[in-house]
Amino acid sequence: MTVKIIVTHKPGVLDPQGQTVLKNLQQLGHKDVHDVRIGKYIEIDIDVSSREEAEKKALEISDKMLANPVIETFRVEP
Amino acid sequence: MTVKIIVTHKPGVLDPQGQTVLKNLQQLGHKDVHDVRIGKYIEIDIDVSSREEAEKKALEISDKMLANPVIETFRVEP
Repeated sequence: MTVKIIVTHKPGVLDPQGQTVLKNLQQLGHKDVHDVRIGKYIEIDIDVSSREEAEKKALEISDKMLANPVIETFRVEP
Repeated sequence: MTVKIIVTHKPGVLDPQGQTVLKNLQQLGHKDVHDVRIGKYIEIDIDVSSREEAEKKALEISDKMLANPVIETFRVEP
C-alpha cells in the first residue's frame, strides 16, 4: 500500500531554496510570481492490510525520520 | 493563487535518496516497508485571475526551471 507524505516548512520558517527560486523567476520576468515554497514529497510503500494502518505507520516514520519537527510539518496526501 | 506542483523521478530512474531512507528504515526494523521514493513538493503563489492560467504558468515554470525533464516528471496537485 502506497502512502504519500508531504513535508513542508512550518509557517514563519525561512525557506532559502524557495526564496532563491523566487528571485530567479522574478529576474527572468515572471513578475506575477509572489512566493515559492519548496518541500519534500515522499511515497512509502508499506506491506500492511489496511490503509489506516499504512497511514499510521507512515506518519510515525515521518515524525521520527523524515521531517525535522522543529521547523517542518507533514501530512498524508489522499 | 497558489498552485501545488509535485516533481518525482520518472519510473525506472534510480532514486538514491529514497533507497538510502529505505535501507535505514529496514535496518531499524521496519521490515514491512518495501519502497521509498522521494520527490519535491513546490507551492507557487501566482497573481493571475484564473486557476487555469495559474496552473498553465506553474507547469511552464516547472518544465523550464524546477524539474529536469530527462529524469523527472511533474504534475499539478489539486
